[in-house]
Amino acid sequence: MVEPATASLAAAPAMPQLKDELDIVIPTIRNLDFLEMWRPFFQPYHLIIVQDGDPSKTIKVPPGFDYELYNRNDINKILGPKASCISFKDSACRCFGYMVSKKKYIFTIDDDCFVAKDPSGKAVNALEQHIKNMLSPSTPFFFNTLYDPFREGADFVRGYPFSLREGVPTAVSHGLWLNIPDYDAPTQLVKPLERNTRFVDAVLTIPKGTLFPMCGMNLAFDRDLIGPAMYFGLMGDGQPIGRYDDMWAGWCIKVICDHLGLGVKTGLPYIYHSKASNPFVNLRKEYKGIFWQEEIIPFFQQVLLPKDCTTVQKCYIELAKQVKEKLSKVDPYFDKLADAMVTWIKAWDELNPPRGGSSMPNGKAA
Amino acid sequence: MVEPATASLAAAPAMPQLKDELDIVIPTIRNLDFLEMWRPFFQPYHLIIVQDGDPSKTIKVPPGFDYELYNRNDINKILGPKASCISFKDSACRCFGYMVSKKKYIFTIDDDCFVAKDPSGKAVNALEQHIKNMLSPSTPFFFNTLYDPFREGADFVRGYPFSLREGVPTAVSHGLWLNIPDYDAPTQLVKPLERNTRFVDAVLTIPKGTLFPMCGMNLAFDRDLIGPAMYFGLMGDGQPIGRYDDMWAGWCIKVICDHLGLGVKTGLPYIYHSKASNPFVNLRKEYKGIFWQEEIIPFFQQVLLPKDCTTVQKCYIELAKQVKEKLSKVDPYFDKLADAMVTWIKAWDELNPPRGGSSMPNGKAA
Repeated sequence: MVEPATASLAAAPAMPQLKDELDIVIPTIRNLDFLEMWRPFFQPYHLIIVQDGDPSKTIKVPPGFDYELYNRNDINKILGPKASCISFKDSACRCFGYMVSKKKYIFTIDDDCFVAKDPSGKAVNALEQHIKNMLSPSTPFFFNTLYDPFREGADFVRGYPFSLREGVPTAVSHGLWLNIPDYDAPTQLVKPLERNTRFVDAVLTIPKGTLFPMCGMNLAFDRDLIGPAMYFGLMGDGQPIGRYDDMWAGWCIKVICDHLGLGVKTGLPYIYHSKASNPFVNLRKEYKGIFWQEEIIPFFQQVLLPKDCTTVQKCYIELAKQVKEKLSKVDPYFDKLADAMVTWIKAWDELNPPRGGSSMPNGKAA
Repeated sequence: MVEPATASLAAAPAMPQLKDELDIVIPTIRNLDFLEMWRPFFQPYHLIIVQDGDPSKTIKVPPGFDYELYNRNDINKILGPKASCISFKDSACRCFGYMVSKKKYIFTIDDDCFVAKDPSGKAVNALEQHIKNMLSPSTPFFFNTLYDPFREGADFVRGYPFSLREGVPTAVSHGLWLNIPDYDAPTQLVKPLERNTRFVDAVLTIPKGTLFPMCGMNLAFDRDLIGPAMYFGLMGDGQPIGRYDDMWAGWCIKVICDHLGLGVKTGLPYIYHSKASNPFVNLRKEYKGIFWQEEIIPFFQQVLLPKDCTTVQKCYIELAKQVKEKLSKVDPYFDKLADAMVTWIKAWDELNPPRGGSSMPNGKAA
């Protein structure tokens, strides 16, 4: 029955006790209000800020925050030639922060995302909800019609197989956005005034075998379980594409989670997304992606990882091989991207040496 | 882009105009308050009441309703020896109503389900929401993180492939329950006081390849698209199992919808489920199902329907064949059930002769 899992969720450490286990990764902060607004929620945590543009510009962080800041020069210094896998002049550079973190959990958020209110008017503690999502299991093998069975007041419904009620570890928690929805440029152009005002009080597991568009605006994950697959690709300066960094990571992490028996949740928490980015600029960044995704998604839908891919790293290297084989014909960009995926794993392993013994599928040392 | 579909939804006929296209099927009415409470919503529609027990008992229907009532004697008279496929002394008999209806849409509801209120206190017009769900497409091939993209104020998010935005026809709309959740007997026993108070303002497509526990309490479907697969099996009098009628139908319709490219939605509308059934009685009815579903669900998860199964009927006959082959070893009951599935299709086709020409996958005549 579900009682033990519910009990273990209830017994999860209170938020301040998790502060030594979670880093907040932010790609550049252009807006000082951002940190002030989040201060009550973020101040207990360590921030990793990855500056996406000109290293000579200074980012001012208000007093009271515990943070480290990396600009391009720092990235080059730390990674050497392997820095080529980190995007420049694009928020995709945030994944460098995932790599240098030493914590178990990452929460990443954009600087135009503010604290949302729930329908009762109460401020949403996004971080707390992400932690709840990640500390309770996922249920990818069968759909529960009352959504996350591990939430208070919910459970598995009649007809849910008992053998599947233990669930699997949750690797990713994907949060949503009130106000400005995360639309592509064509939809932004067609519906410039559309706002998301619907607060859907649900968290659910994305079923095994189903892909989803993962947005990097409000995202948390377990580094130990899935970190090495959370690569945001090659975007921005010198690349033919932008705004597909999080999508790329989403496709990769989902097929790897499905293969390794890990869960991906979506739904709560909401943040308030304040500013629509320029749809004309977005269209220029996106148009190749809009075209390419029609071939990329079928590729990811049919990808098969061999049984001997028992770690995230092995899965990711295998995925890079298949990307090179199958997607290079779409555009030479994918050949370069496949190489960068391999470089990323090498850099990850350098900065995150195995903690003794052989690595297990769950990312923990044996 | 999604505009045309949204527009077509907006241009859908107002509710009263659908009254000639939808029947409400109710298995026995033990509670006269039931129809009084639903009167404002149900009175424009035709009701089909299928009495599950003793035919000598009379069901009183308050004045003002347009209805037909079938008891066991009627079923025997209409179906002759084929009446063996219709359950006796169990609400599973409701599927006889699906068979005798001549309408395109069916809404079925239990007599302990009342009108729910939304968070603003407004009465939920369940029927209207089911119709909205069925008149707008489903999106089973890729998950949309803002849920049903065809709802007002929603759309497909960034990264959703444009080639998939047309969606597929929706065959089934599965609604939920406030107050008493649809739990199995063990969960009822463990959590007797749990009530569902969470109103989740969402409708979503259950992805292709994912099974779900379909509850018959608050369910609508398109007879033309999926009717012949909506068989509620052999339950009740003389059968070793109960409370798996809707589950059985749910597994069958889902694999057939996946095969034929049809959609299944779940979420809104809510009804207010007033009365928990007796958990001890339920346990007696369910215990074999709880055991068997551990083998039935893997069977349905791996079932493959051949390409030449181009109609619901062909799919269902093939499914019956595979049930006989693969599940009879679980219990001889499945041998009997497989035969009843074939009888059901024969009876369905007798009462619903093809409307000229060969049948198309969408159930319409070519």
